[in-house]
Amino acid sequence: MGSSFGDLFRISTFGESHGGGVGVILEGCPPRLAIDVDAIQAELDRRRPGQSKITTPRNEVDQVEILSGLVDNKTLGTPISMVVRNKDFRPNDYGEMQNIFRPSHADGTYHLKYGVQAASGGGRASARETIGRVAAGAIAKQLLRKVNQTEVLAWVKRIHTIEADVDPNSVQIKDIESNIVRCPDPKIAKLMVERIEEVSRDGDSCGGVIECIVRNPPAGLGMPVFDKLEADLAKALMSLPASKGFEIGSGFSGTFLKGSEHNDAFIPSGKGILRTATNNSGGIQGGISNGELIVLRVAFKPTATIRKDQKTVDSDGKERTLSAKGRHDPCVLPRAVPMVESMVALVLADHLLRQQGQCGLWQ
Amino acid sequence: MGSSFGDLFRISTFGESHGGGVGVILEGCPPRLAIDVDAIQAELDRRRPGQSKITTPRNEVDQVEILSGLVDNKTLGTPISMVVRNKDFRPNDYGEMQNIFRPSHADGTYHLKYGVQAASGGGRASARETIGRVAAGAIAKQLLRKVNQTEVLAWVKRIHTIEADVDPNSVQIKDIESNIVRCPDPKIAKLMVERIEEVSRDGDSCGGVIECIVRNPPAGLGMPVFDKLEADLAKALMSLPASKGFEIGSGFSGTFLKGSEHNDAFIPSGKGILRTATNNSGGIQGGISNGELIVLRVAFKPTATIRKDQKTVDSDGKERTLSAKGRHDPCVLPRAVPMVESMVALVLADHLLRQQGQCGLWQ
Amino acid sequence: MGSSFGDLFRISTFGESHGGGVGVILEGCPPRLAIDVDAIQAELDRRRPGQSKITTPRNEVDQVEILSGLVDNKTLGTPISMVVRNKDFRPNDYGEMQNIFRPSHADGTYHLKYGVQAASGGGRASARETIGRVAAGAIAKQLLRKVNQTEVLAWVKRIHTIEADVDPNSVQIKDIESNIVRCPDPKIAKLMVERIEEVSRDGDSCGGVIECIVRNPPAGLGMPVFDKLEADLAKALMSLPASKGFEIGSGFSGTFLKGSEHNDAFIPSGKGILRTATNNSGGIQGGISNGELIVLRVAFKPTATIRKDQKTVDSDGKERTLSAKGRHDPCVLPRAVPMVESMVALVLADHLLRQQGQCGLWQ
Amino acid sequence: MGSSFGDLFRISTFGESHGGGVGVILEGCPPRLAIDVDAIQAELDRRRPGQSKITTPRNEVDQVEILSGLVDNKTLGTPISMVVRNKDFRPNDYGEMQNIFRPSHADGTYHLKYGVQAASGGGRASARETIGRVAAGAIAKQLLRKVNQTEVLAWVKRIHTIEADVDPNSVQIKDIESNIVRCPDPKIAKLMVERIEEVSRDGDSCGGVIECIVRNPPAGLGMPVFDKLEADLAKALMSLPASKGFEIGSGFSGTFLKGSEHNDAFIPSGKGILRTATNNSGGIQGGISNGELIVLRVAFKPTATIRKDQKTVDSDGKERTLSAKGRHDPCVLPRAVPMVESMVALVLADHLLRQQGQCGLWQ
Repeated sequence: MGSSFGDLFRISTFGESHGGGVGVILEGCPPRLAIDVDAIQAELDRRRPGQSKITTPRNEVDQVEILSGLVDNKTLGTPISMVVRNKDFRPNDYGEMQNIFRPSHADGTYHLKYGVQAASGGGRASARETIGRVAAGAIAKQLLRKVNQTEVLAWVKRIHTIEADVDPNSVQIKDIESNIVRCPDPKIAKLMVERIEEVSRDGDSCGGVIECIVRNPPAGLGMPVFDKLEADLAKALMSLPASKGFEIGSGFSGTFLKGSEHNDAFIPSGKGILRTATNNSGGIQGGISNGELIVLRVAFKPTATIRKDQKTVDSDGKERTLSAKGRHDPCVLPRAVPMVESMVALVLADHLLRQQGQCGLWQ
Repeated sequence: MGSSFGDLFRISTFGESHGGGVGVILEGCPPRLAIDVDAIQAELDRRRPGQSKITTPRNEVDQVEILSGLVDNKTLGTPISMVVRNKDFRPNDYGEMQNIFRPSHADGTYHLKYGVQAASGGGRASARETIGRVAAGAIAKQLLRKVNQTEVLAWVKRIHTIEADVDPNSVQIKDIESNIVRCPDPKIAKLMVERIEEVSRDGDSCGGVIECIVRNPPAGLGMPVFDKLEADLAKALMSLPASKGFEIGSGFSGTFLKGSEHNDAFIPSGKGILRTATNNSGGIQGGISNGELIVLRVAFKPTATIRKDQKTVDSDGKERTLSAKGRHDPCVLPRAVPMVESMVALVLADHLLRQQGQCGLWQ
Repeated sequence: MGSSFGDLFRISTFGESHGGGVGVILEGCPPRLAIDVDAIQAELDRRRPGQSKITTPRNEVDQVEILSGLVDNKTLGTPISMVVRNKDFRPNDYGEMQNIFRPSHADGTYHLKYGVQAASGGGRASARETIGRVAAGAIAKQLLRKVNQTEVLAWVKRIHTIEADVDPNSVQIKDIESNIVRCPDPKIAKLMVERIEEVSRDGDSCGGVIECIVRNPPAGLGMPVFDKLEADLAKALMSLPASKGFEIGSGFSGTFLKGSEHNDAFIPSGKGILRTATNNSGGIQGGISNGELIVLRVAFKPTATIRKDQKTVDSDGKERTLSAKGRHDPCVLPRAVPMVESMVALVLADHLLRQQGQCGLWQ
Repeated sequence: MGSSFGDLFRISTFGESHGGGVGVILEGCPPRLAIDVDAIQAELDRRRPGQSKITTPRNEVDQVEILSGLVDNKTLGTPISMVVRNKDFRPNDYGEMQNIFRPSHADGTYHLKYGVQAASGGGRASARETIGRVAAGAIAKQLLRKVNQTEVLAWVKRIHTIEADVDPNSVQIKDIESNIVRCPDPKIAKLMVERIEEVSRDGDSCGGVIECIVRNPPAGLGMPVFDKLEADLAKALMSLPASKGFEIGSGFSGTFLKGSEHNDAFIPSGKGILRTATNNSGGIQGGISNGELIVLRVAFKPTATIRKDQKTVDSDGKERTLSAKGRHDPCVLPRAVPMVESMVALVLADHLLRQQGQCGLWQ
């Protein structure tokens, strides 16, 4: 109910930006999967604040502690619980905002819904909540790699008005990680960094688009009707903070094509294998992966918390002017890259087990 | 698991385009809700094939039969089951396509996943499956109207390259239903109809964008983290056949704004009420409805089944040329309007009960 | 939420004793399972009223119609929906009971919960609801038989004070079906029939105990902690109308033993196989099947609806005397045998798929 | 999937007897509930090992740490996570048992299922897992008390062959807690303690029966068909380690009565209130609470781990003789009392929210 995701490969996250810490329970992971714990930490390091000059200066090491579910670094098949302690937290930064609702932030609606609010820093709406997603996503990635050499890769495609042209077929993780904005085109990346620094200097913020692929996805994943693979991916990605739009394959731009232009012709490839000449489907047809590259895009709005003065109200409904202190990202996209990958990996791992459950008893 | 949707207000659909019929079980509807059965049938009539010259000539009356869950047209609180018999079904239309996979259709991936396929007509991927959604959605609408005078309205915003400019605040159902393409702008609607007829004459198809609003939505609906209201809406709409993209509020275009331009300033409105000066949030902040108009858009690709010759393969992986017979919509959007409304109404009804369950015990 | 059961092999039932009919949707059944439709009907015939002199004279053929999910009698992997029409329904039998609550029946609590009641005959509390369970259970049995030659068998162990001594290891379906009370001991069965006829003549009713085994259960089914196999079996069986108690293996009587007497010593049997010298565990240890015979028992109370006069109240809370008309079973146990088998088969099938999902990717 | 329980008031537990700790996430708790943290600790103290001479000498303080979900000791409505660190753990006690399966324990079946086992001490089958249940159950109790002055009370009714006669209507918590075996009859309690000490001296163990009531339960809780209140209670209690049987109300003994003897006559009590002259129903009719005292009983087998020599096998399937070291309870019942109460409270709290969700929108 709200803080859990997935059916068979299922995570439950907990924790606010204040309080003892944040974390995740991962249920349903297959037993005897060798876990690279360093790789989990590495993903958290990609997500952590304070990693570069274009992220929030809030500086947390975000050291993961695994409390259960492993023996000798192998999964037991029972719940894997991971906790990250909150450390560099400065409640005073939020003191004056306590009862003033930040425009386009969750402060107001949480108050409306629950009649109470976390002490500060956004509570469950804080980006710290995504630590649990990324830690579990790192395990999902390891499962996918083992089963089908599947790889999930995301990158920043656009920051504000600056867009990169990236070939999804050839892009590599090292290209993405070669710069702090996580755009595989280094020239465009430089412009993106400059744009973020510029809006940051102005006390403002900006958004953009992240693109994500799944390379070597198992074919046959996804269900007819409601749990179509693209539907579960859409939910996964629209659940990330600040996301405003989702596209699979040709997306919105594909609606300008006619059927004869948009359809992906099948290529003869042997019984039991599907290959297509084009990939407007984005690797999914009828809700089920066809084995081609899965391609999707997510829109992220500009960060809501900005330093510029804004008109707003407090919890009594009275007019106020807000000038946010705190330490906030002027642009969420660079840190959202591992979040996007994690959510995609979690959806794929879940559907892998679901497919195995229903269709794996006989060939 | 695939064919069920919702947590507390939950539907399970069944049925293929062939076979005895299609239908839905709706669980969790509050007791003693007066049901307007004619309104259910009216929504099915908006969805049914053969309703106009721009839809498939397959002509089915789609008469709903309610098997359980009501007494004297009031809900009992127990499952409401509704069935529509299949009637105007012509399996011969599909005979030659039986083992030839239609490009960008579900034929191939269903075969890949299950190793078996429905006799013809798309099985669960048939648009007939949406009958269950629309029947249950009609009940969700009646619940929402009773509780908060909530209204869910969708319309065709764009067909191929022809786009209408519609004011979400003032649009009325009668404007939408004033023409067969379901675009509230009558002049643009005429152009849209012509475009559909044109691609149809060419044996081709086209797609477009549907816009949907929720007027007078209850505030406080949606959950933090995974079950954000926009995340559940995204899943609901990306589960519709042919959908390729989803946006809430400012969506993809909002990513071209800066935070100071994008943020919706709060307006003083009294304790416990939130109002915003603008609505880039599309009525949802932090995953929770703020009471403003909910606004979303869905991209639908051009219909995959076209009459033009296409390269493809058969179930043995051999090259084939397909020239589809059958009777298909050249454009799914006019009939998708009630489907979009239904999915949105189902998500809202579910979150209404979830909110009531967790937060309704005391004020 | 109430009318659905199972995680991966999942059923949703619908229907009241009045109205158009009752039925079930079965989701998640593996594809390409050959279905013996006659065997489904045969199980419904074991359950149906009017089958013998010791069951209710309400006489319904209960002919199952399969609306979806099969092609050429093979499963498609998509939802299988089955409907049975209500036919021999006589609402006048219930007219005078409409607002008088039958003692120990669901009439009163349904009214309390929902503020409304099905027209008559118990609504969802009617034994007709179990038609859906038995139809789906018949498919679960076919799946279990195919996968591991697994067999689920139940019989009447005790009627009122008359108890049979049955050897679970050797009992066969033909022994059980050799008489109308479904007790494999023919001499005891005769006494049981007489006892039922006796209480029936008196306008009274009686209860008893059903025993059930699973022969050749797959080992390794069940989950640690909450979804222990015996926990899910307990829920399944305590959800049957009139059940009041559940035992696995040694059950309540095992609590009179000491650990040294109760423990089942393991017998050397080769790596990866567990065999035990005794079976107080009833085939389940730590919530997981060990491969030995699963043995359980269910207590059923005497039927609540009796012809004898009873003190009660009506929906206004006023004192009334009730003398039930209608046509009711003086003892539910003979017809409950296929219900018990069905619920056990559904739990096993569900856990089979869950085990396959989590642990089937590699050996 | 295994480690989660409940629909709206939902817990997920984690942790093994080895490793960093054990704990629970509680999702769905209503916001603004004042939490008595000391009362949570007090329940854990009732459950903890080493509390008396008849429990395991393993001595752990089991100090609960609340990581999230509260502000100023009020619930936020977001997940409450609670962790207890493992401290007095002696892996050497288990060293020699590592590959030797304890008869009637989970060692063998876990190995069969997962092909791997927790380092020692039972992993998820350890009684330490129940810490999460008891911590969350303590919050469920506080919710129930606030809403309807509802009280959940359990006690030891029988140890081995020594049974107490307890009046469920008058028993008080102070009577139960007046002695270390938690039997409200002090004379019988003394005999029970002696029996436990006797079997313990012999290196053996014993079981018994716990009885539990719910006083002032809200009426109308529970759902028709599968999620009957007694069905969810049965699952909850049969999921506790060592439980072998469950009864509601008259249970197995009620099957010796005729309908006319067993039925609970309704007493005139005013519109919208149900009262019964007797309570063979145990407070639940048709799966729904009628407002009378809920009464149930659970059978617990003798502890599987005993010091006496036992025949068994190791993970290679070879014959072994086991003489367990470790520190184990000779009888689980005294410590199981708070576990039973917790599971009952969790079921009631969940159904309270479910009832509120479906039926709380209007009266």
